[in-house]
Amino acid sequence: MAKDKAPRRPRAETPRGFRDYFGAEVTERKAMLDAIAGVYHRHGFEPLETSAVETVEALGKFLPDVDRPNEGVFAWQEDAESDSKPGDWLALRYDMTAPLARVAAQFRNDLPSPYRRYAMGPVWRNEKPGPGRFRQFYQCDADTVGAPSVAADAEICAMLAGALETVGIPRGDYLVRVNNRKVLNGVMEAAGVLDPADPDRFFEERGIVLRAIDKIDRLGDAGVRALLGEGRLDESGDFTKGAGLSPEQAEIVMGFMSAKRADGPATVARLGELIGTSAIGREGVQELETIAELLDAQGLGPDRIEIDPSVVRGLGYYTGPVYEAELTFEILDEKGRKRSFGSVAGGGRYDDLVKRFTGQSVPATGVSIGVDRLLAALRAKGRAGGETAGPVVVTVMDRDRMAEYMAMAGELRAAGIRAEVYLGNPKNFGNQLKYADKRASPIAVIQGGDEAAKGTVVLKDLILGAKIAEGASLEEWKARPAQVEVPRGDIVAAVRRMLEP
Amino acid sequence: MAKDKAPRRPRAETPRGFRDYFGAEVTERKAMLDAIAGVYHRHGFEPLETSAVETVEALGKFLPDVDRPNEGVFAWQEDAESDSKPGDWLALRYDMTAPLARVAAQFRNDLPSPYRRYAMGPVWRNEKPGPGRFRQFYQCDADTVGAPSVAADAEICAMLAGALETVGIPRGDYLVRVNNRKVLNGVMEAAGVLDPADPDRFFEERGIVLRAIDKIDRLGDAGVRALLGEGRLDESGDFTKGAGLSPEQAEIVMGFMSAKRADGPATVARLGELIGTSAIGREGVQELETIAELLDAQGLGPDRIEIDPSVVRGLGYYTGPVYEAELTFEILDEKGRKRSFGSVAGGGRYDDLVKRFTGQSVPATGVSIGVDRLLAALRAKGRAGGETAGPVVVTVMDRDRMAEYMAMAGELRAAGIRAEVYLGNPKNFGNQLKYADKRASPIAVIQGGDEAAKGTVVLKDLILGAKIAEGASLEEWKARPAQVEVPRGDIVAAVRRMLEP
Repeated sequence: MAKDKAPRRPRAETPRGFRDYFGAEVTERKAMLDAIAGVYHRHGFEPLETSAVETVEALGKFLPDVDRPNEGVFAWQEDAESDSKPGDWLALRYDMTAPLARVAAQFRNDLPSPYRRYAMGPVWRNEKPGPGRFRQFYQCDADTVGAPSVAADAEICAMLAGALETVGIPRGDYLVRVNNRKVLNGVMEAAGVLDPADPDRFFEERGIVLRAIDKIDRLGDAGVRALLGEGRLDESGDFTKGAGLSPEQAEIVMGFMSAKRADGPATVARLGELIGTSAIGREGVQELETIAELLDAQGLGPDRIEIDPSVVRGLGYYTGPVYEAELTFEILDEKGRKRSFGSVAGGGRYDDLVKRFTGQSVPATGVSIGVDRLLAALRAKGRAGGETAGPVVVTVMDRDRMAEYMAMAGELRAAGIRAEVYLGNPKNFGNQLKYADKRASPIAVIQGGDEAAKGTVVLKDLILGAKIAEGASLEEWKARPAQVEVPRGDIVAAVRRMLEP
Repeated sequence: MAKDKAPRRPRAETPRGFRDYFGAEVTERKAMLDAIAGVYHRHGFEPLETSAVETVEALGKFLPDVDRPNEGVFAWQEDAESDSKPGDWLALRYDMTAPLARVAAQFRNDLPSPYRRYAMGPVWRNEKPGPGRFRQFYQCDADTVGAPSVAADAEICAMLAGALETVGIPRGDYLVRVNNRKVLNGVMEAAGVLDPADPDRFFEERGIVLRAIDKIDRLGDAGVRALLGEGRLDESGDFTKGAGLSPEQAEIVMGFMSAKRADGPATVARLGELIGTSAIGREGVQELETIAELLDAQGLGPDRIEIDPSVVRGLGYYTGPVYEAELTFEILDEKGRKRSFGSVAGGGRYDDLVKRFTGQSVPATGVSIGVDRLLAALRAKGRAGGETAGPVVVTVMDRDRMAEYMAMAGELRAAGIRAEVYLGNPKNFGNQLKYADKRASPIAVIQGGDEAAKGTVVLKDLILGAKIAEGASLEEWKARPAQVEVPRGDIVAAVRRMLEP
């Protein structure tokens, strides 16, 4: 074999925009999702795990601002089955809603109706990666398919509040805010950009209004007003055409977003003024009232869930109630400034979930929790769960007594204590200590020849003790405080005492 | 808009070879994997969740019998970054070992050494789907990277036995069987198809021997002997060239597979005879002895883990100890015949995990549990865990009292009882009963106007009661036995009594 030209080695790299999760990153997320799943389960929701792969045809054009069906997703074509039958295009799911739509259509004769399901798992987006922006991330959704009543929306809101409190966000640290697309429709009717007698009229204007109010956080009051009127010239000199509303009409729409009053009934009253005589608006206001009543009856008052017309995200997508969970406590941003943590979940009611497939309209409502954001919040609050303590490390002083070291680790494990034997090259004892340090081990167990002869073991408390100096000799290290020598038979009891908080 | 030509509706179908998991299918698997993760965690293993997507370059040609790099996997090419730089080829991982190799190389300066990790999750194979053969399935692996000692192999075997017993396969219902590739090398040396002075000699013959013994289950004794000798003519008339061994040489190799004796020491002695003077063979036999000693010291005797040279699967791939877990109880196959359940996990020691990337050899050993097979075994034994009881269903007799129904469900949940309010159209009470039936609901709660006036609720025991007749009227249904009327305030206590086993 020619050895002068070695083959190029492959790069050991996570693909661009992807990442790996190690240790506590996995267990903390799992603990959080398990707690949420428990809440969903108690509410009667069933888990659903769809295949990660869907046909591009079934996914459809769900991604916002995407024209080509396979843009925004990772897609590939199956091998052709024959010359006349090209292979299907397949793609990784980009959210949990599109697969739910497919399942709800495919299994409509077998699933209970209403069908309450939750889904947790990765989704994939073929987008330009950026800082903190990954092409694979977790979603955690709960939806009720086939329940027309707003009681289903109220249930989702209550369940969302319950999930947040269960994972460690207490009342006062969050707020679920509820709005309703139908109220906005009523307001647009009052403003003259929706004609119930001819819903196709003002189609373009309505689109501009929906996109404009969705940008309130970024553009502010003046920017949105400009887009509602003649249009907006941005800093780069680009002009965006407006909806052409008069100042009076724009005032009505802007009034919608600032309609929140001191309490729910006052907000509802204000919304009632804004919608004028609109029937759809009236329906929306009544839905908000019903939701508030149902939640109040369960003890979920406005300190947990409140009506707030300034919730505008998703109003263009949802068809009825819209809800969003915001964490209200402050954290320091990357520049050290205090700011409210912000939104961690959102959802609402949407029609036509299944209609694409069956032609039949099926009402659905659901919520999606931003798994990474909620987990970041729990970490910021020191409330991320999942056992993350390192194992007790049984060091190897004498290779011939490996069976005895393994027996020690086995006894500790049988007592429910996480434990392992050092399995690297035991010659350099310093390496064993560095290893224990890297594993965040709370205790090192040491039994050299002397201890074995005496029938004892030495337990070194690695948490109490100072950080292990690299390269310290065994003698220096043993001389430090926070170590005890105990009879071999007492190892479990002694380790347990040391681990007590 | 032209309405005469409606667009074709997309098919609501899981892609060919993929499937969805519903309810108990999800929770049972999760309960099993959680229990296994607990065992791995107590042994000091850390979870690792790699991205589902890898570069094709990093995956390499790991799949058996695959020449083209992206055959057998689902692969696609990234968009080009520039005209001169074509996009990377990406692919879904096909197992958990290739990503571990990439991670062990990429993060070698950050990870502890040895690195013990477990990984659980879906993998994808672009293969022809068949009955019970899917293109996405779960794997559950545990590996130790960087531990040269066979103590690491013994640990994996012990952990595997612990995992099986923890999920519900008791001692006596399984056996972990251990073999060693080095012993086979010694046997091949004794048979004259391996020359330690010139390892490249007999390369082709050795390959034929390895492939032949791997087929012992399918071809039987005579078939393997033929392949070890001149060759084998199969039923279709195809001739497969043999390794060209003399009958005496073939006898030595065949003797290896049937070297198992009454106990470990006797088997070890027999293997010692077969390897003759081979140094590598001697090393392998000693490794088997050491593993048996280490396990014995932990109380894991041959009733749980035994040396068995007939374990040949993977001997061509692994470089040292090889192990396999077999479930020994009998089940009925699809034709009603009794047969042993068979293998549910396998693994062994492999070199060069990281070498492809770094050029540096890193020893590793690990096991992979066949998640679907083990779960099927637990189901066959009635030991699959995961709470699968349906929710208590609070029926809706009077839409105006929805708040009260939701309060009932809330009280039950607060007491830890799974409960929900019926959220479909409540008009047809029969539909509510059919729904409760479909949900496997244990209890239906009913409060009509009469009960509300009296301050009571009716609890219908749906498990004790007969299967609900379709279309039964409320009156007929209420008249059946196994229902009680209790004061509204006693709902939690009464439901709890009814749910008691």
